Amino acid sequence: MTRAAPYIHDRPAAEAFAAWEEACAAAGCPERVEAVRMPLDQAVGRVTAEPVWARSSSPPFDAAAMDGIAVHAAETVGASETTPVRLDASAFEIVDTGDPIPGDFDAVVMREDVHELDGGVELRAAAAPYQYVRSIGEDVSAAELLLPAGHRLRPVDVAAAGAAGATELVVRRRPVVTVIPTGDELRPIGSGLAEGELPDTNSVMLAAQAEEAGCEAHRFEIVPDEPDRIVAAVRAAAARSDLVIVIAGSSAGRDDHTAEVVAEAGTLAIHGVAVRPGHPVVLGVVHDAAGPATPVLGAPGYPVSAALTFDIFAAPLLARLEGAPPPEAPVAHARLARKLASTMGMDDWVRVRLGRVGGQLVATPLPRGAGVLTSLVRADGLLVVPARLEGHHAGEEVTVRLLRGVGEIERTIVATGSHDLVLDLAASTLRERDPRVTLASSNVGSLGGLTALRDGLCHVAGSHLLDPDTGEYTLPYLDRLVADRRAAVVRLVHRDQGLIVARGNATGVTGIEDVAERGLRYVNRQRGAGTRMLLDHRLADLDIKPSSIDGYQREEHTHLAVAAAVAAGRADCGLGVLAAARAFGLDFVPVAKEPYDLVLLEDSLDDPLLAPLFELLDSPDFRDAVDALGGYDTSEMGRRIA
Amino acid sequence: MTRAAPYIHDRPAAEAFAAWEEACAAAGCPERVEAVRMPLDQAVGRVTAEPVWARSSSPPFDAAAMDGIAVHAAETVGASETTPVRLDASAFEIVDTGDPIPGDFDAVVMREDVHELDGGVELRAAAAPYQYVRSIGEDVSAAELLLPAGHRLRPVDVAAAGAAGATELVVRRRPVVTVIPTGDELRPIGSGLAEGELPDTNSVMLAAQAEEAGCEAHRFEIVPDEPDRIVAAVRAAAARSDLVIVIAGSSAGRDDHTAEVVAEAGTLAIHGVAVRPGHPVVLGVVHDAAGPATPVLGAPGYPVSAALTFDIFAAPLLARLEGAPPPEAPVAHARLARKLASTMGMDDWVRVRLGRVGGQLVATPLPRGAGVLTSLVRADGLLVVPARLEGHHAGEEVTVRLLRGVGEIERTIVATGSHDLVLDLAASTLRERDPRVTLASSNVGSLGGLTALRDGLCHVAGSHLLDPDTGEYTLPYLDRLVADRRAAVVRLVHRDQGLIVARGNATGVTGIEDVAERGLRYVNRQRGAGTRMLLDHRLADLDIKPSSIDGYQREEHTHLAVAAAVAAGRADCGLGVLAAARAFGLDFVPVAKEPYDLVLLEDSLDDPLLAPLFELLDSPDFRDAVDALGGYDTSEMGRRIA
Repeated sequence: MTRAAPYIHDRPAAEAFAAWEEACAAAGCPERVEAVRMPLDQAVGRVTAEPVWARSSSPPFDAAAMDGIAVHAAETVGASETTPVRLDASAFEIVDTGDPIPGDFDAVVMREDVHELDGGVELRAAAAPYQYVRSIGEDVSAAELLLPAGHRLRPVDVAAAGAAGATELVVRRRPVVTVIPTGDELRPIGSGLAEGELPDTNSVMLAAQAEEAGCEAHRFEIVPDEPDRIVAAVRAAAARSDLVIVIAGSSAGRDDHTAEVVAEAGTLAIHGVAVRPGHPVVLGVVHDAAGPATPVLGAPGYPVSAALTFDIFAAPLLARLEGAPPPEAPVAHARLARKLASTMGMDDWVRVRLGRVGGQLVATPLPRGAGVLTSLVRADGLLVVPARLEGHHAGEEVTVRLLRGVGEIERTIVATGSHDLVLDLAASTLRERDPRVTLASSNVGSLGGLTALRDGLCHVAGSHLLDPDTGEYTLPYLDRLVADRRAAVVRLVHRDQGLIVARGNATGVTGIEDVAERGLRYVNRQRGAGTRMLLDHRLADLDIKPSSIDGYQREEHTHLAVAAAVAAGRADCGLGVLAAARAFGLDFVPVAKEPYDLVLLEDSLDDPLLAPLFELLDSPDFRDAVDALGGYDTSEMGRRIA
Repeated sequence: MTRAAPYIHDRPAAEAFAAWEEACAAAGCPERVEAVRMPLDQAVGRVTAEPVWARSSSPPFDAAAMDGIAVHAAETVGASETTPVRLDASAFEIVDTGDPIPGDFDAVVMREDVHELDGGVELRAAAAPYQYVRSIGEDVSAAELLLPAGHRLRPVDVAAAGAAGATELVVRRRPVVTVIPTGDELRPIGSGLAEGELPDTNSVMLAAQAEEAGCEAHRFEIVPDEPDRIVAAVRAAAARSDLVIVIAGSSAGRDDHTAEVVAEAGTLAIHGVAVRPGHPVVLGVVHDAAGPATPVLGAPGYPVSAALTFDIFAAPLLARLEGAPPPEAPVAHARLARKLASTMGMDDWVRVRLGRVGGQLVATPLPRGAGVLTSLVRADGLLVVPARLEGHHAGEEVTVRLLRGVGEIERTIVATGSHDLVLDLAASTLRERDPRVTLASSNVGSLGGLTALRDGLCHVAGSHLLDPDTGEYTLPYLDRLVADRRAAVVRLVHRDQGLIVARGNATGVTGIEDVAERGLRYVNRQRGAGTRMLLDHRLADLDIKPSSIDGYQREEHTHLAVAAAVAAGRADCGLGVLAAARAFGLDFVPVAKEPYDLVLLEDSLDDPLLAPLFELLDSPDFRDAVDALGGYDTSEMGRRIA
């Protein structure tokens, strides 16, 4: 607690990048990596270091463009059906497509138009001069510019260079990136983890990002939170790299040493950028008495921050080192599913799901925490809310940088609503059956799902919403929520809801009434979740005040997250499905059996997009797989109930 | 000439692909390549063979989301500026971001809000329960579906899998593709070429395409046009491959053996597809008594056909073998620059250049010959005219599959018009100075350029159009062609035009009058080219009829192509610039000195897109480089002359 406030000063991203480049230049970092000469087949993927001028012409000779005979056009003048022209063997030569035109012949007659006669041929149409002749240089002439410098070579480029006489190309070598994971709590992936330890996944991710950017990537062993050792590692890495990335320790906590390490090993150019997530970024240069200076990037330890920091700062620097234009994601325009608030003064990189619903591309923001890496895994795109904006209204058209192809996005079944493991299983099975089919589900609770359906934001809403007045599920809500459009309801399953408790149920809980009575630590679901409404309904029946439940305010978004909290001993119990308890080897005290349904608009029943889902619900194999999860009754699966 | 007509029967592409897949299945080809278990860091880029379910939760414990202290929220109730709450050392614990929440604390107070006192701290605000606590499983809960099967792993995916407890992933191994080049005329790249021989660039290209598609690619040595040897090579390749590609010999000429080879080695499913370029495609299966059958693709030898055949047939097959969705190019909508005729019954894959001109994306078709590989090198996109259409009208909105990023396309300076080497040099220099700048020039002659400028199809038109009435260049045409919008003219160079003749000028030609007189073989430029109009003007002055010039009908599109024809001995002379003659070591007989100008709309003078070009014209380095080409006078370069 010795530092009262962080000393991070957030600078706008573009300004920070410019300051970094300036510091690199001032310290004498090379502007480009070296040019090397490479055989054509090894040059694919590399960036040209100099323009490629054609050395020879392609084709290198006048060539036949058809199978047939080469002739003198002048000798065919006047040929017609009624006045055929006869050519003796000396007046033509047989050629196949691609053959050089022999002698001073100047035209080709295609095989189909040649009529054989003893010792010669007959033509019944005149040949125009140069017909079916591919001129020398038709593709490329010697001395023509084939490719400029700064061009990333594709297969077609090297083939064209080869056809134009090149056998080697001068390209930039791959930049070398070394990633240094730091942190006392880190352990290599695959080693056992003690309490409080974490697997070092960030260095794997950043090294893979560097490779994807066309670099040679190396990972150092994990360095503990000791400044001297980190300095030594950074110096060693810099001596053999074009960019060093230090992971974590870039903030201003007790164990955050990256900024001081960079200052010690060279120049600290930037500490903090106005980007969310990811603001505690360190940008600097490592000096080296024996060689050139090397740029260094200190990436935050939160995985989303680390990944985005690479894209925002490392990727353009590496492109510059290769002399290539910076990478750019394709963009699309989409309607924002809900209001999005954002902090002024910070570029906010929001991960979004995209789906084509009702003919429109819709962007739904995913969880925004810097630690929620699955938000990036599940994202179809990135929506950057610039620093000068406070956010966007619901329904506003926004520009999204795409992380998946539009075609794939448009073939995605968007399911929004209650969470159930059967939807996960369905998503996986659909994909296994046909890799072109994607089912993307967002867990926003039953109520959120029905609202999304009403607002044209999803194709399917998973719901098990209990109406306290009627005791009925889901149906009573439809009139209220999707009244103006006809909804259809398809039964997915019945499922057992109950209290998920520690194995052996040491607290001996038998039902919800025990939770308040015995002062058990409860873990709840978020507002709008059907499971929370089930709890509230039971509490009301039992006349128990929510405030008397310890942990009523602790909200999780899925059954599995509830089970995880119980399994970790952070809570004694929580309401959820049997399958979630089973997944964690926990015990389960049944509370209710409830229907879980899929709600959709009636028009969608015939939508080819949804056909694979309905086929799946009819498939005995899939029902067997769901039965195997436990706690599900699949006897009505796929039945339209409204 | 024994076969009167080819026996190729063209089938629609989708039908052909389906027939191929059916033949593969019938012959027992595996539906997927094997699944293998791989460490996380090696699994990037591979496709999941089974769904990835989280094995553990991430974070694996309740963790601090801020640097500060862990507290019991209940013990902070009522804290305010006026009624601070004091906590003794036993009532809190210092935590950094990411640390596990110790004991049964249930909230974190951030460092900035903690005030130190002797042996304890003081809080001036109450902590809400669970504030700044990242719940166990916030990112992912154990047993949750993290990734479905059939998903190509990105860096972020393997990091998330690692955070969820995976140390290895089950993925499809890379498919193995073997490419067999065939043809008596082929020589390996880098070996000397005799007359009529060609470098084997296709196998390099197709192997690189296979690698780009995520495969392991092998190339066989070139096999001569002998059916038995090709059969042996195909069998040997099939025994170790998931796909065999035989290049060339897929048509129906004398040396085209691929179809019979495939029939001999297994099943010939398809010979000929209704795709242009590329229709003589062979699709089949190689049988193997000792192992599984293997798909085989016979690709045409024309390089554009070969490249597109891979995209249309090999790529989706390889994706299916990996269990991944077939690759898809992003698309854009553009206005077609000119009428495009297409043969009914054939899908026509037209390569197009794209540029944003006047706020609109414009697609200009490139040369359509199957042998013009540079059309694919220079293409920004592919426009597929489906078999049922006869083409598109000029100005029609068309859908283009993108080969370059839209951002890069929008930053491209589109130059259309006369060809000059100075434009090539400018394109290359601009790119070297800033890899983000692209200058794309299309050679359609001076007249074509001015028309394109009028029609809003280019930013800049290169012109040296002589007006026979006034003897003036370019300016007299502006009123006629771009009258409704104000044009500006910027001088590029003066240049020497003359007759390009063989080294030593053995024919002793001294001027255009000699060409007809001595019966020399001439090589001309295309209609609308300024250089052709110069010839016509001189011929008229000399009272020589064009028809008396041998080769007047032989049209080339660039100065360099003219020089190439002379260098190859296919013509005695042709009109062109000195630099082209020099590039081929040819002699040059001066005929005229002419201005070569850049014409643009006046509004574009301030367009930031064009600024780098104008800066370049002002740069002494660039003028020196142009002077070094020979035959150019740069003294007026960059001067606005109208």
